[in-house]
Amino acid sequence: MIIEFASITDPKIQELKDRFGQQTDVFIHGERIAITGITESDLAEADLATAKKIEHSHPKAIQSSRVFHPDDIVVKTPHSQIDHQSLTLMAGPCSVESRDHLLKMAEVAKQAGATVLRGGAFKPRTSPYSFQGLGEEGLKYLRKAADAFDLDVVTEVMDEGHVDLVGRYTDIFQIGARNMQNFSLLKAVGKTKLPVMLKRGMSASIDDLLNAAEYIAAGGNQQIILVERGIRTFDNKYNRNTLDVGAVPVLRELTPYPVMVDPSHAAGYHDLVIPEALAGVAAGAAGLIVEIHDNPSQAFSDGPQALLPEDLLVMADKARKIKAVLMED
Amino acid sequence: MIIEFASITDPKIQELKDRFGQQTDVFIHGERIAITGITESDLAEADLATAKKIEHSHPKAIQSSRVFHPDDIVVKTPHSQIDHQSLTLMAGPCSVESRDHLLKMAEVAKQAGATVLRGGAFKPRTSPYSFQGLGEEGLKYLRKAADAFDLDVVTEVMDEGHVDLVGRYTDIFQIGARNMQNFSLLKAVGKTKLPVMLKRGMSASIDDLLNAAEYIAAGGNQQIILVERGIRTFDNKYNRNTLDVGAVPVLRELTPYPVMVDPSHAAGYHDLVIPEALAGVAAGAAGLIVEIHDNPSQAFSDGPQALLPEDLLVMADKARKIKAVLMED
Amino acid sequence: MIIEFASITDPKIQELKDRFGQQTDVFIHGERIAITGITESDLAEADLATAKKIEHSHPKAIQSSRVFHPDDIVVKTPHSQIDHQSLTLMAGPCSVESRDHLLKMAEVAKQAGATVLRGGAFKPRTSPYSFQGLGEEGLKYLRKAADAFDLDVVTEVMDEGHVDLVGRYTDIFQIGARNMQNFSLLKAVGKTKLPVMLKRGMSASIDDLLNAAEYIAAGGNQQIILVERGIRTFDNKYNRNTLDVGAVPVLRELTPYPVMVDPSHAAGYHDLVIPEALAGVAAGAAGLIVEIHDNPSQAFSDGPQALLPEDLLVMADKARKIKAVLMED
Amino acid sequence: MIIEFASITDPKIQELKDRFGQQTDVFIHGERIAITGITESDLAEADLATAKKIEHSHPKAIQSSRVFHPDDIVVKTPHSQIDHQSLTLMAGPCSVESRDHLLKMAEVAKQAGATVLRGGAFKPRTSPYSFQGLGEEGLKYLRKAADAFDLDVVTEVMDEGHVDLVGRYTDIFQIGARNMQNFSLLKAVGKTKLPVMLKRGMSASIDDLLNAAEYIAAGGNQQIILVERGIRTFDNKYNRNTLDVGAVPVLRELTPYPVMVDPSHAAGYHDLVIPEALAGVAAGAAGLIVEIHDNPSQAFSDGPQALLPEDLLVMADKARKIKAVLMED
Repeated sequence: MIIEFASITDPKIQELKDRFGQQTDVFIHGERIAITGITESDLAEADLATAKKIEHSHPKAIQSSRVFHPDDIVVKTPHSQIDHQSLTLMAGPCSVESRDHLLKMAEVAKQAGATVLRGGAFKPRTSPYSFQGLGEEGLKYLRKAADAFDLDVVTEVMDEGHVDLVGRYTDIFQIGARNMQNFSLLKAVGKTKLPVMLKRGMSASIDDLLNAAEYIAAGGNQQIILVERGIRTFDNKYNRNTLDVGAVPVLRELTPYPVMVDPSHAAGYHDLVIPEALAGVAAGAAGLIVEIHDNPSQAFSDGPQALLPEDLLVMADKARKIKAVLMED
Repeated sequence: MIIEFASITDPKIQELKDRFGQQTDVFIHGERIAITGITESDLAEADLATAKKIEHSHPKAIQSSRVFHPDDIVVKTPHSQIDHQSLTLMAGPCSVESRDHLLKMAEVAKQAGATVLRGGAFKPRTSPYSFQGLGEEGLKYLRKAADAFDLDVVTEVMDEGHVDLVGRYTDIFQIGARNMQNFSLLKAVGKTKLPVMLKRGMSASIDDLLNAAEYIAAGGNQQIILVERGIRTFDNKYNRNTLDVGAVPVLRELTPYPVMVDPSHAAGYHDLVIPEALAGVAAGAAGLIVEIHDNPSQAFSDGPQALLPEDLLVMADKARKIKAVLMED
Repeated sequence: MIIEFASITDPKIQELKDRFGQQTDVFIHGERIAITGITESDLAEADLATAKKIEHSHPKAIQSSRVFHPDDIVVKTPHSQIDHQSLTLMAGPCSVESRDHLLKMAEVAKQAGATVLRGGAFKPRTSPYSFQGLGEEGLKYLRKAADAFDLDVVTEVMDEGHVDLVGRYTDIFQIGARNMQNFSLLKAVGKTKLPVMLKRGMSASIDDLLNAAEYIAAGGNQQIILVERGIRTFDNKYNRNTLDVGAVPVLRELTPYPVMVDPSHAAGYHDLVIPEALAGVAAGAAGLIVEIHDNPSQAFSDGPQALLPEDLLVMADKARKIKAVLMED
Repeated sequence: MIIEFASITDPKIQELKDRFGQQTDVFIHGERIAITGITESDLAEADLATAKKIEHSHPKAIQSSRVFHPDDIVVKTPHSQIDHQSLTLMAGPCSVESRDHLLKMAEVAKQAGATVLRGGAFKPRTSPYSFQGLGEEGLKYLRKAADAFDLDVVTEVMDEGHVDLVGRYTDIFQIGARNMQNFSLLKAVGKTKLPVMLKRGMSASIDDLLNAAEYIAAGGNQQIILVERGIRTFDNKYNRNTLDVGAVPVLRELTPYPVMVDPSHAAGYHDLVIPEALAGVAAGAAGLIVEIHDNPSQAFSDGPQALLPEDLLVMADKARKIKAVLMED
């Protein structure tokens, strides 16, 4: 149950926490207090008298729901502000390959107006015999390249044991699609202060995604960015996944977190990336995360879906113009 | 096999048809001739000598493939030209409800810049006990309302036996998603001269859709418009279907037919229709087909997904601006 | 609303039909009368006084629901009785290829204990350039071959215009998966007296299937057999479709029609057909419909999924033994 | 490349490892040696002279493939032998609830002929606010209850950091569907000596499942059991997931590991569990893992899918009889 008070004082909050906090979860957001699993009869008359509004039904993922948290959450990093009033661009290679290559890619990202550099140092690969990433060395290259161009870093953390290590180098944790329901990992990043970019699992429903986000929020961290990156459907011959562009307006309605789109993993092939990126922006995305490479055929991973530097510039320019069309009143 | 000649004369074409046409299919498009099921050794030396290029592999749906037909097909109706250089808007109610209501909706469509009026006179309903449409009376209302505002008509034909009847009133035949593989119906409209708007089936792969189009083309009619209208996936809680926006650039690469998007059936709920419509345009669609109603809660069918007149104007305005961004060189 | 009376007389039925039949649908089954779209307040006190039980909620597909029709429907043909107390085997080639070949296949079917011969005379092919069936000639061969071995015939009817023609030769109409929502065709076979075998569409939900069956029932024909034949999912590399074996117990609970399984189209490859056939029987299917061929590599269509004659014997033997295990109390 | 020798000596193996082991992976199984990423020209003439057979193409998941490992792998635990010649039954509650309850359930499992007791001590729950399991206390109860009835234990391990702890109590590690691509966890259990029961992810393809198994095998542990537990499709109204029963024969062809079926999670509702369990056995499963509860409405988790004790006995009896039908020559 969610109770919205006209005004609520700290002692009142404390009193409600004391009364209910032993048996159930109590959450506070502004004048709203959410107490799970209770009904009106569990409240005192005094509580009801000062309540402005009571919501009896809400999603299980309560802190991630606009029913409880109606206002937008803005995610802030040193060089970026991720929200639906602007368009954030994150770009970089799939894998960190070398110090020099990453510097070159960071320069390209910067030129295109990106504020975040992406790159994988720990890679979740389908096969154990594929390249698994450079590890900590890759993290160092990422930090250096980002700093050289005043960019933030986003990079994947694959297990609980690496949260501290990755956290020393990155500005944003990425949770990959395959780990969207790795609950131990979600709990671990939820206890940090760093923003978390949570990618939707390949067959995760909207509710699954919000429940996964709630694991992070439950730890006290609501600096969360959600990413639609294509879902698995019956048709994967020409697109590797199906970009569920309709998830963007749905998530914007349901949750306060900014919603981005990853057209590279959705499409899987570079000639489809720009149309799908622009579709994501037109549907209302807060930003794009895109893979780039100057020599895709030699990329360590995911070459076929990498945009060339010149294509990134075209994409970024059109994306900004479409965002401007949306922002006209 | 597809043979492209530097130039080809009518007697040469006739000669090849005589030689191969008995055992297999022979198709002509400009300087290209496609002969299915043969190999180079079936050709005479003289044929090979004058060939500019030979393609050994091609999709089964050969006439619907850019391998055989590289240039765009433009679909022309009295008031519209449907192609990827422009943005065609089709709008109207789900069902034809009454003469007056349809006139009102036609006026709204016209104001928004639509050139085609949509409306169902024969309705494919999941349940036999739901409203099945006004039939021929509905067709008459459609024709009158469209003529009153200089619009074209598009309406669904549900079976072979109705092709003549519907053809007397409509400018474009619609083949619905549930009938995408009703091969008898596809053959029947393939023998007419009217354009055909073919909607992708709920679980039709891209190749299934192109093979369905080929049934129409095989009858001699290539005035075909393809429509992405959402596919069936594991997630239908918030969107009724999943708009496969990535199908738009894929189809544009594979086939010469214009590709439109139907955001109303994809979304199923009106608040999602505009973002998905704009996503379709940004992905490169040649147009939009949208359901509208001035009083959705009283609509005979599909009320929840109908846009209000004022929302249609907003959508059309933003859609045109996004199309303009794409058309900038 | 469904009203169950302790006993109901013909005049009472007539009176209710007269009272409600103009505005809504009225259905009778034994002591039950279903009147759609009304509430208790529309009934007279006298009606309520004699009612034994009232069901306010029921599926739209009311005649196809056990809520209205709790007892099993048994489908009877000259040589078969299709129900869940027995195991009916239907076998034959995918396409009718020639008179002699069909005779040979009919003999094989008979030896394996089949009572129905299957074979396609009109073939719904994905491509317009694939073999489309022998047409009426194929129907004649089917009839002759079946008669020679005291078998029934099941064969597909693809459009409304062929219902009379096919009905002159077959004992059971087959509606193919691609036509499951060809509502004109469903209405047409609903007006005949012949049993209809309705295959589930590739992406049809259970409710879609029951609504499609209701189109047939609404015409007055409840001699309906439902067939699970594999659905379209994300994984079609090793099985062509995914046999939804769990649909068998679900349908048995929801509907009075017998439910059969088609392992050939589900699997798509012959080495998977027997395990999936036996799974269907173990899940409670009323029978199997299987494609066979003595020389699969030369089959006109679907060779890879055809069982060899000797494999059919093995399958039939094990299927019957599994059915016996289920029938033990 | 896989080279099969007529006979191979240890020095020869060592020599090949020395030659190729630095740059690529070298695997040995009997007379077969697999060297990834090389071609025939990388071998010496002497190598080729003694080779009996060379396979140039094989799946990436090479150790999990019958191309490299043609013979069945039998998984052995103190009280069970899991293979396709027999039928192993694993049963128990979804969550460990209390010491007494678990003892009661273990007794039921034993009576039904189970040799393995299942139960969750660490629970992967969709929501962070749902019961997360009893943790180590639950592991202790499991061990005690299993020992009291001479049963093995299978229980889920959810993260790398718990592998040691869980390994002290269990006989078989379970990797849950949501963690099927938690590569850090797969690597961790791959380094242990305990058997691993790997559940297929909700949207994992067959190849994804085999690559996940290969992560375990790559660590040196091939005591692997694969479990089909239902996949996510467009239809989840009546079954919670879709049991992909056709995956059983596919996996048996492709991989040497025993394949089991989990009908409880596939169905999600107890009245569907027995038909789906029997379908799994008829399709060739090596065993069943089933959830049971004596008072499902009070279960801590997944009550609706729990079988009652008396139903488990019925299921086990029929399952064994069906297995016997399959094992007849």
